Amino acid sequence: MTLRYISKRADSFEASGIRKVFDLAAKLSDPINLSIGQPDFDVPEAGRSAMIDAINSKHSGYTQTQGLPQLREAIQKQVDVKYGHSDRSVFISSGTSGALTLALLATIDAGDEVIFFEPYFVMYHALTCMVGGLPVPVSTYPDFSYDIARLADAITPRTKAIILNSPANPTGKVASRAEVKAIAELAAKRDILLISDEIYKSFCYCGDFVSPAEYNERTLVLDGFSKANGMPGWRVGFVHGQGELIEQMLKFQQYTFVCAPNVGQWGALAVIDVDMTEQIESYRQRRDLIYNEISDIYEINKPEGAFYMFPKVPQGYKSASEFVERGINEFSLLVIPGNVFSSVDTHFRISYSASKTTIERGIDALKKLAQVK
Amino acid sequence: MTLRYISKRADSFEASGIRKVFDLAAKLSDPINLSIGQPDFDVPEAGRSAMIDAINSKHSGYTQTQGLPQLREAIQKQVDVKYGHSDRSVFISSGTSGALTLALLATIDAGDEVIFFEPYFVMYHALTCMVGGLPVPVSTYPDFSYDIARLADAITPRTKAIILNSPANPTGKVASRAEVKAIAELAAKRDILLISDEIYKSFCYCGDFVSPAEYNERTLVLDGFSKANGMPGWRVGFVHGQGELIEQMLKFQQYTFVCAPNVGQWGALAVIDVDMTEQIESYRQRRDLIYNEISDIYEINKPEGAFYMFPKVPQGYKSASEFVERGINEFSLLVIPGNVFSSVDTHFRISYSASKTTIERGIDALKKLAQVK
Repeated sequence: MTLRYISKRADSFEASGIRKVFDLAAKLSDPINLSIGQPDFDVPEAGRSAMIDAINSKHSGYTQTQGLPQLREAIQKQVDVKYGHSDRSVFISSGTSGALTLALLATIDAGDEVIFFEPYFVMYHALTCMVGGLPVPVSTYPDFSYDIARLADAITPRTKAIILNSPANPTGKVASRAEVKAIAELAAKRDILLISDEIYKSFCYCGDFVSPAEYNERTLVLDGFSKANGMPGWRVGFVHGQGELIEQMLKFQQYTFVCAPNVGQWGALAVIDVDMTEQIESYRQRRDLIYNEISDIYEINKPEGAFYMFPKVPQGYKSASEFVERGINEFSLLVIPGNVFSSVDTHFRISYSASKTTIERGIDALKKLAQVK
Repeated sequence: MTLRYISKRADSFEASGIRKVFDLAAKLSDPINLSIGQPDFDVPEAGRSAMIDAINSKHSGYTQTQGLPQLREAIQKQVDVKYGHSDRSVFISSGTSGALTLALLATIDAGDEVIFFEPYFVMYHALTCMVGGLPVPVSTYPDFSYDIARLADAITPRTKAIILNSPANPTGKVASRAEVKAIAELAAKRDILLISDEIYKSFCYCGDFVSPAEYNERTLVLDGFSKANGMPGWRVGFVHGQGELIEQMLKFQQYTFVCAPNVGQWGALAVIDVDMTEQIESYRQRRDLIYNEISDIYEINKPEGAFYMFPKVPQGYKSASEFVERGINEFSLLVIPGNVFSSVDTHFRISYSASKTTIERGIDALKKLAQVK
């Protein structure tokens, strides 16, 4: 039976394939889990202490819609120092996904087009559909680099926004300074909103992170504490962009998220300047470990950031889904098939946000999976 | 300048008038604040301890989309005992507003109609517009009771949902068993989704709370811990309804809220059975204090629940907005004008979620405001 009152919107899109893998994972007794989209380190001690203090100080009410003033001001100060833009306002969101939801609600009407690079983070496609927009993926296969001519070709009079995600989920690709500059300038020239999802910006293994906001003052930046500071379950992110757009997003925040969780915001305030070099270095080592072990048997673009890699499925498999299914059935290996992030099903995502032991078990399973066929 | 890329959706609705009063409040040095929409008691000690334990146990990752299994199962058990419905599933949302957002995303397409009683909680109107629906307010003036004939008349073939909010914000009205039964049966008969917003259900001063789910198995119930357990800033609510609708809502949760805050869910689990009688009794006393003092000079329907009352503006004022403005300017009194909750601007909302001292200062100011003209 289908209920009469389910919306067409709901019928038009599916639960994320990632969740399906997680549901499978829950049934396996000792999976080799290389599917996790969150860091395996915990909030720094300073953050835990600050949150406990906040609980003891009874900070259990709503904060302002735009966030805890102390946190907002601290981030605003950093943003002002970094960019020096005359019109760039910060507010605190419920995670980076909360920020993206608000950004699309505030900008996308039925039929408006949103461009993003493919393979893409699942939310870009889903949320664009949710608000009635048309997703326009621009392929970056086979090497995941950003083809500016292809991007320019995808622009139409209905294009409202371009989403850039560097370092990227699921590929680990980091856009070069030249690529970032070209994308930023193209968006500015065509008066298209550039949304820069910078949630993985701390995870850069090859040089400094470059934000398109350096080259395009109107860039809307989405960021957060989930990945960089090990607190995804706290649901605290932040956004900065032009004041007028920020005001529009806050209207929607008022009626949906209300505010980011109060205590989590105190935690974020305490970790904002904590040095995470050690954690990032550990991720670099894990990347190197897995890349060095499997890059001769899998076709992989060496990831430069985030904590993912996106190898091609070896010859002999019909699809990434078949490969992943076999990995689950024969080795209890959990990785995510490429069709979750793409219209093609030729690659799979490995997350190396896992212990060294798990990664080593994963390498072993991946070697066997490549040989079997 | 208006940015090219702001959506028509954003242009079509305004920031809540409540926020405007809050912004004013921030500028006053010692306001008599009777505008607060959250309880003034804190999370019970058991909740605070559980959250501190959760932080120390490093529960900082995402929970499942549907929530912490322990919390979900505990609520499911209570719901099953209470209703005994064969098809009623629970999930944990980011507050009750998060649950309502998901409910409307999962059910309302462009042009679908959503009926709710007027005066109404601001989100019902705003969120209906946000998802492209048409708000259909059914007036309950002058005594705020539920006129079933008027409700039936408002139903059209495009009606997808009816929202019932009892105890009600902003009126403090509690629907009688007969009213609840009639609304529940009408919705069932016409195959319209009945959404019951039960966030104030603990705050009933005249007999037991009655849920329409007792009379209509397909009722979607929105509930939470924010008001009953003094933890609005934690953003933890819950929902229960038919499995198919819950599944659809979870799809949207995945891409927007992701999950309710992890640590807050541990707190909720610890307070689920804590006795709040003392706090509720204190609210009843505050209601009586203010009602007994001003009901001879203001026309008020004695509120039976929540922590609001909605008196009529006295003769001599052009509008509630004029009344409220004068209260701010002359007495630093913060109350909310009726046009925030209604198409008419004849009443104002008092929240008695304030200290006895503040309430007494408020009574004094209200007496003077009634006399001045």
